[in-house]
Amino acid sequence: MSADAAATFIAPGDNVGMSGFTGAGHPKVVPAELVRRVSDATARGERFAVSVWTGASTAPELDGALAAVNGIDLRMPYQSDPVTRAKINAGLLDYLDLHLSHVAQMVWEGFFGHLDVALVEIAGITADGELIPSSSVGNNKTWIDMADRVILEVNSWQPDELEGMHDIYYGTALPPHRQPIRIVEPADRIGVPYLHCPPDKIVAVVPTNAPDRNTAFKPADADSQQIAGHVVDFLAHEVRRGRLPATLLPLQSGVGNIANAVMAGLDGGPFRGLTAYTEVIQDGMLQLLRSGTLNVASATAFSLSDDGIADLRGNMEFYRHKIVLRPQEISNHPEVIRRLGCLAMNGMIEADIYGNVNSTHVMGSSIQNGIGGSGDFARNAYVAMFLTPSTAKGGAISCLVPMVSHVDHTEHDVHVIVTEQGLGDLRGLPPRRRAQQIIDHCAHPDYRAELQDYLDRATSGAVGKHTPHLLEEALSWHVRYLTTGTMRSD
Amino acid sequence: MSADAAATFIAPGDNVGMSGFTGAGHPKVVPAELVRRVSDATARGERFAVSVWTGASTAPELDGALAAVNGIDLRMPYQSDPVTRAKINAGLLDYLDLHLSHVAQMVWEGFFGHLDVALVEIAGITADGELIPSSSVGNNKTWIDMADRVILEVNSWQPDELEGMHDIYYGTALPPHRQPIRIVEPADRIGVPYLHCPPDKIVAVVPTNAPDRNTAFKPADADSQQIAGHVVDFLAHEVRRGRLPATLLPLQSGVGNIANAVMAGLDGGPFRGLTAYTEVIQDGMLQLLRSGTLNVASATAFSLSDDGIADLRGNMEFYRHKIVLRPQEISNHPEVIRRLGCLAMNGMIEADIYGNVNSTHVMGSSIQNGIGGSGDFARNAYVAMFLTPSTAKGGAISCLVPMVSHVDHTEHDVHVIVTEQGLGDLRGLPPRRRAQQIIDHCAHPDYRAELQDYLDRATSGAVGKHTPHLLEEALSWHVRYLTTGTMRSD
Repeated sequence: MSADAAATFIAPGDNVGMSGFTGAGHPKVVPAELVRRVSDATARGERFAVSVWTGASTAPELDGALAAVNGIDLRMPYQSDPVTRAKINAGLLDYLDLHLSHVAQMVWEGFFGHLDVALVEIAGITADGELIPSSSVGNNKTWIDMADRVILEVNSWQPDELEGMHDIYYGTALPPHRQPIRIVEPADRIGVPYLHCPPDKIVAVVPTNAPDRNTAFKPADADSQQIAGHVVDFLAHEVRRGRLPATLLPLQSGVGNIANAVMAGLDGGPFRGLTAYTEVIQDGMLQLLRSGTLNVASATAFSLSDDGIADLRGNMEFYRHKIVLRPQEISNHPEVIRRLGCLAMNGMIEADIYGNVNSTHVMGSSIQNGIGGSGDFARNAYVAMFLTPSTAKGGAISCLVPMVSHVDHTEHDVHVIVTEQGLGDLRGLPPRRRAQQIIDHCAHPDYRAELQDYLDRATSGAVGKHTPHLLEEALSWHVRYLTTGTMRSD
Repeated sequence: MSADAAATFIAPGDNVGMSGFTGAGHPKVVPAELVRRVSDATARGERFAVSVWTGASTAPELDGALAAVNGIDLRMPYQSDPVTRAKINAGLLDYLDLHLSHVAQMVWEGFFGHLDVALVEIAGITADGELIPSSSVGNNKTWIDMADRVILEVNSWQPDELEGMHDIYYGTALPPHRQPIRIVEPADRIGVPYLHCPPDKIVAVVPTNAPDRNTAFKPADADSQQIAGHVVDFLAHEVRRGRLPATLLPLQSGVGNIANAVMAGLDGGPFRGLTAYTEVIQDGMLQLLRSGTLNVASATAFSLSDDGIADLRGNMEFYRHKIVLRPQEISNHPEVIRRLGCLAMNGMIEADIYGNVNSTHVMGSSIQNGIGGSGDFARNAYVAMFLTPSTAKGGAISCLVPMVSHVDHTEHDVHVIVTEQGLGDLRGLPPRRRAQQIIDHCAHPDYRAELQDYLDRATSGAVGKHTPHLLEEALSWHVRYLTTGTMRSD
């Protein structure tokens, strides 16, 4: 069927479950037709908007284009598109920012209403009618299971060798019928390589041939390299102290250039025979697999540069036995993450001196992207690490502040904070000693004295000295930035 | 051995793992001798302090007495003693406030250093040398396993019928050796009824005959009854909507009078054949078991009034087949809570209009008690509910505020907020719509207009309108209380 015709199965007000995770495996052509239908309706003076549920982020031609024509009522559970972000922060688009592990179960539990349509990219269909998943799995199993109508985009751009790489687990259930998820090693396969869909639910099959959104891979800058160095030193130190095995524990690494730098740092470090149990496979992780530093990687999606895609496609026979792609409810499942004891490494916007982390909001009010899987991993990790340069905006923002303007990971969930300045190990430390660690090891020298001054004055002046704060100035650094364009006081 | 002699096995600087959870099963006599030794040392001009690790709260003769003589270096993971609290908030005692499910694993992982002594109350010793656990389990298995020296208090006050009630799971391990925890129903037993201890580690056995700290059970006040009514109505509504089975899902209920009122409300409601998978069994839960509303309760401790204790002791044959007591790493394990799909009901200090919850800090700086298990349950629950009267201190404090002064449960983890005013169902709502729910349904009428005014001005004035805040006044309600003694502006 043409994309044009397929898009007619999406009606105004529908809840639409779309494939897509970090720009991989999103539908490539039907969204554009949906955008056209929204624009036509708008031209006729009619409102046409849908709720868009995905795995995570998609691409400009989906999120961006649909948001630009005001075609989205509510977006969940994660997005990173600049046009969509602007609409959300203008108050024009409702956004539900969820733990990625919570999405599928909450849809099953009926908390978000009925799913009308699934719009899912697949890599192919077998002779038996099984669906070969694409370059991301995300929530596709749940969308197909729960939707009234299923629209499939079959993308011939995706390599044939994806077949067999996925592990789609059909053992989830609603309580009281849930059973243990029997993954005990990152490489374990507990499902099947295919998505199932009753043929009578499929209202459209649309052939496509279009690339995933590629993610530019920038060489690591000096800050990222220093952060990576601190992480590698820390892990080696933990091995020497007997607190980690020589092959470490399964790595989880957030998306972005710092994460890629950490992967590169690990490749240059003393470690071999590692594993990863993570959300996303970036270029850096392919390199680790190639070099033998990493034996296996489990994830729910790829997020590669053009070079990474070429590498993957050119060496699929090598990679397909070392990579498992799972639904995100399994890649991010607290049960599995806790059991495996993942080493969680995620970026952040800011942390405060007491170790609370803000992953989502700029100056307390504006969404950046979303929490994604960082909470799934941090809460259940063996060691929860958060990484950031110590400053942003050319030094106008200190990423270590007296009090964060929004909390996504509480003091109870943050073990280690790393900046280019150093590594603050907060494990076992009460609040004031955490603050001293962070000031001494993580803060930029330009802001260190002022943070120390705040801590000292709060310790002497606050009513309670467990977590001393001066509430009238706790957020004053953010207010100063909003007023003057810099957190610097001079 | 006498308590006096046993206490000599505890040296200055030791890390001491003590039994005790909500005033049940804590050591009754050795702590007093430790206090005496600390006082004697102080009189000699010497410092004598230890780090005290427990299950949760203990009793005045342990926490309070030891804190009063400055005998505690660091306290973890939870406490509720007024003397200890005052020392912590005076900056004189270091306190580590942890998720209760994290404690045992982090001790095994070596993050808190070496455990020198275990001081554990038991109910008896079998002819085979097995230890019969007491009225709480807490972290006792871990303390006994990890400590160099074990001091046992054998409390003959504890009923003989406790034998067989416990389920001590010896299947935990450090990663990469962790296996699934095979509990699929609250009543499942996966361990043994006894604690094991190699005899050569036992340096002292001290006989005692002393009651647990009893917890006064007050009749539910009007606010608690109204909160309970809203919870029962909500659960019945969810059953009618097909989002909960008629026998609900395993209940988790925090400690306190609101929790007891909710239990009483459930007993008067339409439900039968329920189960509980929770931390603590209070009087209200015994009543549910007696009436048949509840079939079984799994917990890690009792927390009963004098009447509740008499009831338990008088009907032990009835109760012992309906109650399972587990180590707190299992009662609070994210894997099990998520699998069972608990209905989590916990108290709080305050929530903000966007659904962030503060469970631990008064006015941002002073610790109240600690996070306890609320995060273990809320994050992994089927529905995470937080309950509080809408005001405190005779109306001088609004428990719904523009921005909480400390975050323990983020917007991503809070589904339902209940006050005597009503119930705010936040599931599926983006931030501004959550705010409207909370203002309309949860806030006290005396504060409603002012919260609405803040939301309206923030929505028009904030730079970002996803979670609109006016940072210069977001914490002004708390500042006003600290300055004037009330959050009221008039």
